[in-house]
Amino acid sequence: MTLKFALLGAGRIGKVHARAVSGNPDADLGFVADASGDAAKAISEQYGCRVSTIDEIAADPAVDAVIICTPTNTHADLIETFARAGKAIFCEKPVDLDVARAEACLKVVRETGAKLMLGFQRRYDPHFSAVRKAIADGRIGEVEMIQIISRDPGAPPMDYIKSSGGIFRDMTIHDFDMARFLLGEEPVTVYATASVLTDKAIEGVDFDSASVTLTTASGKHCTISNSRRATYGYDQRVEVHGSKGTISVENQRPVTIELATGAGFTRPALHDFFMTRYVEAYAAEIAAFVSVVKDGASPSPSGEDGLRALILADAAFRSVKQGVVVTL
Amino acid sequence: MTLKFALLGAGRIGKVHARAVSGNPDADLGFVADASGDAAKAISEQYGCRVSTIDEIAADPAVDAVIICTPTNTHADLIETFARAGKAIFCEKPVDLDVARAEACLKVVRETGAKLMLGFQRRYDPHFSAVRKAIADGRIGEVEMIQIISRDPGAPPMDYIKSSGGIFRDMTIHDFDMARFLLGEEPVTVYATASVLTDKAIEGVDFDSASVTLTTASGKHCTISNSRRATYGYDQRVEVHGSKGTISVENQRPVTIELATGAGFTRPALHDFFMTRYVEAYAAEIAAFVSVVKDGASPSPSGEDGLRALILADAAFRSVKQGVVVTL
Amino acid sequence: MTLKFALLGAGRIGKVHARAVSGNPDADLGFVADASGDAAKAISEQYGCRVSTIDEIAADPAVDAVIICTPTNTHADLIETFARAGKAIFCEKPVDLDVARAEACLKVVRETGAKLMLGFQRRYDPHFSAVRKAIADGRIGEVEMIQIISRDPGAPPMDYIKSSGGIFRDMTIHDFDMARFLLGEEPVTVYATASVLTDKAIEGVDFDSASVTLTTASGKHCTISNSRRATYGYDQRVEVHGSKGTISVENQRPVTIELATGAGFTRPALHDFFMTRYVEAYAAEIAAFVSVVKDGASPSPSGEDGLRALILADAAFRSVKQGVVVTL
Amino acid sequence: MTLKFALLGAGRIGKVHARAVSGNPDADLGFVADASGDAAKAISEQYGCRVSTIDEIAADPAVDAVIICTPTNTHADLIETFARAGKAIFCEKPVDLDVARAEACLKVVRETGAKLMLGFQRRYDPHFSAVRKAIADGRIGEVEMIQIISRDPGAPPMDYIKSSGGIFRDMTIHDFDMARFLLGEEPVTVYATASVLTDKAIEGVDFDSASVTLTTASGKHCTISNSRRATYGYDQRVEVHGSKGTISVENQRPVTIELATGAGFTRPALHDFFMTRYVEAYAAEIAAFVSVVKDGASPSPSGEDGLRALILADAAFRSVKQGVVVTL
Repeated sequence: MTLKFALLGAGRIGKVHARAVSGNPDADLGFVADASGDAAKAISEQYGCRVSTIDEIAADPAVDAVIICTPTNTHADLIETFARAGKAIFCEKPVDLDVARAEACLKVVRETGAKLMLGFQRRYDPHFSAVRKAIADGRIGEVEMIQIISRDPGAPPMDYIKSSGGIFRDMTIHDFDMARFLLGEEPVTVYATASVLTDKAIEGVDFDSASVTLTTASGKHCTISNSRRATYGYDQRVEVHGSKGTISVENQRPVTIELATGAGFTRPALHDFFMTRYVEAYAAEIAAFVSVVKDGASPSPSGEDGLRALILADAAFRSVKQGVVVTL
Repeated sequence: MTLKFALLGAGRIGKVHARAVSGNPDADLGFVADASGDAAKAISEQYGCRVSTIDEIAADPAVDAVIICTPTNTHADLIETFARAGKAIFCEKPVDLDVARAEACLKVVRETGAKLMLGFQRRYDPHFSAVRKAIADGRIGEVEMIQIISRDPGAPPMDYIKSSGGIFRDMTIHDFDMARFLLGEEPVTVYATASVLTDKAIEGVDFDSASVTLTTASGKHCTISNSRRATYGYDQRVEVHGSKGTISVENQRPVTIELATGAGFTRPALHDFFMTRYVEAYAAEIAAFVSVVKDGASPSPSGEDGLRALILADAAFRSVKQGVVVTL
Repeated sequence: MTLKFALLGAGRIGKVHARAVSGNPDADLGFVADASGDAAKAISEQYGCRVSTIDEIAADPAVDAVIICTPTNTHADLIETFARAGKAIFCEKPVDLDVARAEACLKVVRETGAKLMLGFQRRYDPHFSAVRKAIADGRIGEVEMIQIISRDPGAPPMDYIKSSGGIFRDMTIHDFDMARFLLGEEPVTVYATASVLTDKAIEGVDFDSASVTLTTASGKHCTISNSRRATYGYDQRVEVHGSKGTISVENQRPVTIELATGAGFTRPALHDFFMTRYVEAYAAEIAAFVSVVKDGASPSPSGEDGLRALILADAAFRSVKQGVVVTL
Repeated sequence: MTLKFALLGAGRIGKVHARAVSGNPDADLGFVADASGDAAKAISEQYGCRVSTIDEIAADPAVDAVIICTPTNTHADLIETFARAGKAIFCEKPVDLDVARAEACLKVVRETGAKLMLGFQRRYDPHFSAVRKAIADGRIGEVEMIQIISRDPGAPPMDYIKSSGGIFRDMTIHDFDMARFLLGEEPVTVYATASVLTDKAIEGVDFDSASVTLTTASGKHCTISNSRRATYGYDQRVEVHGSKGTISVENQRPVTIELATGAGFTRPALHDFFMTRYVEAYAAEIAAFVSVVKDGASPSPSGEDGLRALILADAAFRSVKQGVVVTL
């Protein structure tokens, strides 16, 4: 049985998912909807699917699953609509920038019994998932301390920053999910400090440099270091220190050559950003969602995972603003 | 304009090319032919193309290009057939195991004006092609000495070895092409030594371990080291030493994590073989062929490139058997 | 002119400095004193110097400089004695575990005009000092965020832990000095969390796992991660992220070979501890002290540097105990 | 018992050995002799030893061992002199540039029963000796193929080149010794090609670029690649491929930092030459010689090892000049 998919939102990340769906042998991209007719039409032509509307898609019994890639402030409404319509839902993070709204939405999901999976694609990156597997296999013993370094090549446009919910809800939220994915225990305290170092224009609107420390009840620590600027490319590292050893993920670059001259030994810069860095993760994420719909696997990350990451982001903002350690 | 392709041979490498053609926006896989109806049918169902025959494909004016993935001993005949039929031809290496037969075939190609590109996919690997670009950009000055290390994870089945033409025509031939691709000058002497070290069953049939040295008229050297067994995966390295510096390609592994314990720091093994190591190269190779057909780009590697690699392989066998340095 | 040195304390670190002095062309080890006659005698025989006493050394006009490697609780008294005796003083860290006592001692140093250099040897490690030089040379632009990872192979004996002043005054203090060395600005807030994860016997006495975040007035951050156990050796890393780039120090291992097998690619474990890891640093540190005495160079680190690191350690303990962010 | 050493030849490498002897607890540098009184005097002052003559040293019963660092053309005579005088002898390579003269000298050594160790210091480099140990421990199974890459940062002065015996006797000879050290079997064929690529002034006098292949009776291969110019420093690599795995030595650099910027990830150049690259090897080599003299250990490398490397060098020259594969 091939699952029939509808894509809601045909922007940058929508295109990524359209490709992943069309390349998956168990899925078929049947419909696309977008506020911009042109964007929808482009997807429609490339993948041979029909341009449609939210309402039609919700009403069409042929649709098994939807992929929500619309603006953040529409996520919660759309999740509720499609949960009630009995569709399986893959939604880009976050459910909502507001914790109360997200909780209300997840209540609807629970009540309708809808399948909801969130788009923290890093869980499906082959390197990060190999780290998780190594931990599960006992290769490093008990997890003790985690270091996450996550630096973007450059800050997004000011318009995006203004509506993004801020660095912790927009950027660090992926690291909060990774921390929870690897810690095996919920954080109970959050300390964060943040500043504007890369671009003074951001001052007063958001931060571009942040350090966060999480601790758990059993005394594990996780440190997250974020910057919105890395001259050498998209820096995505994780290191987990355990009782028997330490495991780490090396950064990825598109070309792995090395040039040796009198100036030293030089390897090329890293991937330019997430679209190229996480190609395999996006495909594996959709494959996992197909398995959720088809085989009844548990969604990972779930809506609840999304909520918990958001709560950590809120706590981080409170820590910065009040200069305190926040206990959850 | 989308080019209509026919695939001849639906085995392991045929499947790789079918996927590459179907993923290329300028190409459409219209036909497939294979001695085994089942293999052809599988491709037909996966990509929605028609099962056909050599004769029908050659006769069909809708077909722009063919991809030849049939057994080696059919290559020369098929190239001639499709050259005469006016089709563009992509053929897996080699044209033929016999130099005279290959030369006769290439004569037909020249006379018919057919476009012929050979399948030495390593030229399209992003890492090796970055090395070639760095050389062309003058990053290492004049090329002086090249080291190629190429080790397979394990020997192919004895049946394959018996019909493969031997290690130099089967395995080293890729390294001969790489040597020519990077040297920028034709080899004029060939020295080779070969032995059986990995599996005594190969003794008398072929070799499994070989070292080859090529020199050019201006005194450049290229050393090739081959083994049919590497316990740690598919080892594919090149290093080019020049007057201003040295450039090298690092080995590729599917997962780049590192585990540190009392036993040391361990990274996972390399790719298991060419099917996973050269995924990007196979796609880029077909894209280049599409550009040859569509835009009139020169085929690289050409039939002539294939012939020259074969001549080097023959010289290597002579060097081993007679214990001499062969001058071309 | 060759400087005449006296060594006070002939234990483990005393031996390291004895070797460094005797290998320095501008220094001569003339005297050694130790509570244990045997330890002093061993040094005396190896380097041809005289066994003496504190009082004799202080009174002897032939002595230019002393190296204090006695137990921590004697440092402040000895520094005062030799400052008053007009000797140049190299003292292992810390001046004292108590800030008030350290301040009183440094007052004597100032009043007597004595030259005092402290033993934070990492400043003289060729790798860390190359990082500092790269920053000074503008290679990474403005310093923004620093990560320090410092993990010991194993915890010291319980007796040592009890009298060490605790993890922040004993172990992290080196990282506090490194942070100040590289930040180029004084920390103004300290957040620390600590727990016991490696050995439950430490519970209630000290901590073995700690994460610390420092911030400066201009919004720079420094994160320090400590563990008293690393199965893979002595882990000593620093990474400085700046506006133009990032610079990092790789870990050091005594043997840099790599073994590739079916189990992957394995490099040996790191140095076993500071005695082997910092061999070059100890020699360079004494050379720098010789230059302080002989050429009037400013001591780095100074007594003041030691005091500031100690104040950060005190703040870290307060942060952990009270669960607050400490402002300096 | 401390051994009394005499140093013959106080030039660059003589100074290295003087330092190694004086740093060895079981050895004492008692005498130095050099054609240049100034050079001898400098050593004498630095290490407190007596300036003497060859004849006095040979006649002095207090001398246990001599270190010969004089010009190559004096080695054989000096070895014979001190063998007859009953001294243990450490001699820089080679015994002589002429095989017959070397054989005659070694005959005297055998007849007198003198202890003779040759200065191929790479055997004592911790990295290369760890490779040999790993092989001995069975970590890679049976040795099959060896790659040695050895590139000098720059060519020596033309005067040195003229009297050096040529690239194979001067530079490759170290690689021949390393090949024998690791192969565990004697080479039976030698193929070499050489050219002048780095400096046309060398044309007609010597070569600066060479590739050599050795094979053994059981079919093992060793490839050596030499260049007299590497812009990025002193390149010294070995890789041994075996039935169970491959082991390799990484290049060494004095500072192991990495700078990441928009231009990529850059590590510093390698050591500038053997004086800094092989510091540990020179010390370990003298320690091994002390053990030969004191404890009766077998010298490694022996005079015979030196002779065999020289025979390989001669064969390489013959291979190049006659364009043939030389069988030994």
